[in-house]
Amino acid sequence: MIQRPRGTRDFTPQEMETRRYLESLFRLVAETHGFREIATPIFEHAELFTLKSGPNILDEIYAFEDKGGRQIALRPELTAPAMRFFVNDLTNYPRPLKVFYFGQCFRYERPQSGRYREFFQFGAELIGAPNPESDAEVIGLAAAMITRSGLGNFSIRVGHIGILRSKLSEGGVKSESAPAILQKLDKKVYDEAVPLMQQAGMSDGAIEDVVALTKTIGGIDVLQSLTGEPRDYLMEVFQVLQSYGLKDVKVDLGVVRGLDYYTGIVFEVDAPMLGAEKQVCGGGSYSLTELFGGEKTFSTGFAIGFDRILLALEREGMKAPQKNVIAYVVPVSETMRLAAFKITADLRSNGISTDVDLMRRNLGKNFKYADAIGAKFVIIVGEKEAAQDSVTVRDLKTGEQRLVRRSDLSQVLKE
Amino acid sequence: MIQRPRGTRDFTPQEMETRRYLESLFRLVAETHGFREIATPIFEHAELFTLKSGPNILDEIYAFEDKGGRQIALRPELTAPAMRFFVNDLTNYPRPLKVFYFGQCFRYERPQSGRYREFFQFGAELIGAPNPESDAEVIGLAAAMITRSGLGNFSIRVGHIGILRSKLSEGGVKSESAPAILQKLDKKVYDEAVPLMQQAGMSDGAIEDVVALTKTIGGIDVLQSLTGEPRDYLMEVFQVLQSYGLKDVKVDLGVVRGLDYYTGIVFEVDAPMLGAEKQVCGGGSYSLTELFGGEKTFSTGFAIGFDRILLALEREGMKAPQKNVIAYVVPVSETMRLAAFKITADLRSNGISTDVDLMRRNLGKNFKYADAIGAKFVIIVGEKEAAQDSVTVRDLKTGEQRLVRRSDLSQVLKE
Repeated sequence: MIQRPRGTRDFTPQEMETRRYLESLFRLVAETHGFREIATPIFEHAELFTLKSGPNILDEIYAFEDKGGRQIALRPELTAPAMRFFVNDLTNYPRPLKVFYFGQCFRYERPQSGRYREFFQFGAELIGAPNPESDAEVIGLAAAMITRSGLGNFSIRVGHIGILRSKLSEGGVKSESAPAILQKLDKKVYDEAVPLMQQAGMSDGAIEDVVALTKTIGGIDVLQSLTGEPRDYLMEVFQVLQSYGLKDVKVDLGVVRGLDYYTGIVFEVDAPMLGAEKQVCGGGSYSLTELFGGEKTFSTGFAIGFDRILLALEREGMKAPQKNVIAYVVPVSETMRLAAFKITADLRSNGISTDVDLMRRNLGKNFKYADAIGAKFVIIVGEKEAAQDSVTVRDLKTGEQRLVRRSDLSQVLKE
Repeated sequence: MIQRPRGTRDFTPQEMETRRYLESLFRLVAETHGFREIATPIFEHAELFTLKSGPNILDEIYAFEDKGGRQIALRPELTAPAMRFFVNDLTNYPRPLKVFYFGQCFRYERPQSGRYREFFQFGAELIGAPNPESDAEVIGLAAAMITRSGLGNFSIRVGHIGILRSKLSEGGVKSESAPAILQKLDKKVYDEAVPLMQQAGMSDGAIEDVVALTKTIGGIDVLQSLTGEPRDYLMEVFQVLQSYGLKDVKVDLGVVRGLDYYTGIVFEVDAPMLGAEKQVCGGGSYSLTELFGGEKTFSTGFAIGFDRILLALEREGMKAPQKNVIAYVVPVSETMRLAAFKITADLRSNGISTDVDLMRRNLGKNFKYADAIGAKFVIIVGEKEAAQDSVTVRDLKTGEQRLVRRSDLSQVLKE
């Protein structure tokens, strides 16, 4: 047998119905917030991703040469393609431009629980409005999507990259040394971060302050003791979040998101029941357009790990509606077959999802099949009933059976 | 600027709304016919496609070696992945198993009008029911989808590969020589097909018969003069199609679909306004499972070229609904900003798609932005109105303006 490639998945009808259900909830919430969908190709020039994340990214992604000798890569994430699209074609749209997207991403990494080589991201970007309220709008969208998904247990933590950056700078760290330190602080590996801060010339007291900051989590009161522009900005973001009715969002100055291009607020959403892989969403404000040949444009965005949030929802017992057919039509004999197809076509054109016997089975086997596919009613098309211009309708759940006129059938099944 | 790769496309919000609209129509029709969605990965082991289509396919597709040395290929079509999935995991499902799928496919070919390197297919397979009625069910689904899409001008032509095959065999053509001849006949290149038939030992009369057959198009009456099992089978398929209400489907014995694995009926749908690239759908009954290591299982399926049918619809003037916001909320002053966010959150939680000023613009500029994004109403949040627990609602189309109580706002906007 030919297997699917390692780290990829096929999805059964049951799985797809759950996935499409969550996808359409997310889409609905995004549209209600005034975001509109865009899409970009599955692969890009590899340069797009090395510009954003450095040449080492090539070790972790599917990169290859096409027949024309171009370096191509399957997209590992969707922000860079979205911003590349913006720079190429969307700069004349009214600002702010609010977009979302949903699709497959690819990473060549060791497959493990909650991590796949082909995975799905749902993300959004608000382009061109560097304001506390635009940041709050994006955090608010992420919160509304996750709330609407039905996930019960999650937490949203928001920080501002500028608070730590200015502390490092005040402590004497040169801007070129900051990224390495921030990356270690992001992962909370203090035994590596502290020596780096020492080498960068920081005093023990300043280092202690920085370490304490990265452990600062709580309500907006934790911002009281701080001063400076990033702190004031963050206060304003929280004011808007409260107007949006989001009371549970936490300040977390330890959210760093170890990437250079973040410029202001940063946020993460965790679903604690997922353990080590608990982060289901991450985002922040950033500028990438100038890297891709455009004018510098501030944006705020996030990506939700679609597979992870689904895993969290399933652990909480989520049940998505399944799309079994309503009616299964069975002719009792060879002579009734064409009549059965006519009835099937009628029901379908009335919007009733309908299957019909395609295997010329006997009545008993047809009932078994109807049960197996989860049909709600079996419509029995017999000679006797036909003489009265009727069919027999059997409710598979209750076992109840009754004669229904053909002209009433759609109406009866819709009740 | 970094460009998207050649032959690929980005999709704007307007384009995505049209595409999602058509996709959801197709999905609805497929579900109403009792088909359920499955999904497979974007890439497969290259072997899957060489087994189905021969090693030459590698010249036309994106094939590459992954970091583990595996030969990987971006999927050029979706039938082989679907049948691979069936063989691996779905053989215990009740038969017939009716599935559909939608997604990107990839071919490394010269981009031209209606042909892209990344393109989209919507397809369906009915697995495990080799009957005239199951074939008719699949043709019926394709017809219902295309009809429901709103395409006005299209034609469905159905043939049976067995009719030509038996004529060739009766004429003395050995089974190993038939595929090459059928491929030429499929493309109607008679000046290459005729010499091949001569070499294979056919008489001039038999060759003339075969050529005439491939030009036979019409109602079921064109089948009257023929005999044999395939002809009787095709008659039965058309009987069921008529019960389904499909009167316009044509018999076309020239539909060959030059691939070995077709076993019975074959069909194509054309949208004539597309000229040389007029085929929007192709399908037939086939068996592939045994190639992929499973038991031989007959299936009938089709693929619709999503991009082509969209192109045809657009040429016919299709207008899909666009998802502009209903309400755009504007605070008249700094002091009303938080009140504006509260109203925005209220409207959104009532399911009304709403945007809010995120740029601290003045009223005039806000009206311009509201126009530009196509909002239906501007909600003006002012001090005077707030004192009466109200807002001013302006209809952007009529210019009409009125005072509305906040508690009535959602209701008024929904009317």
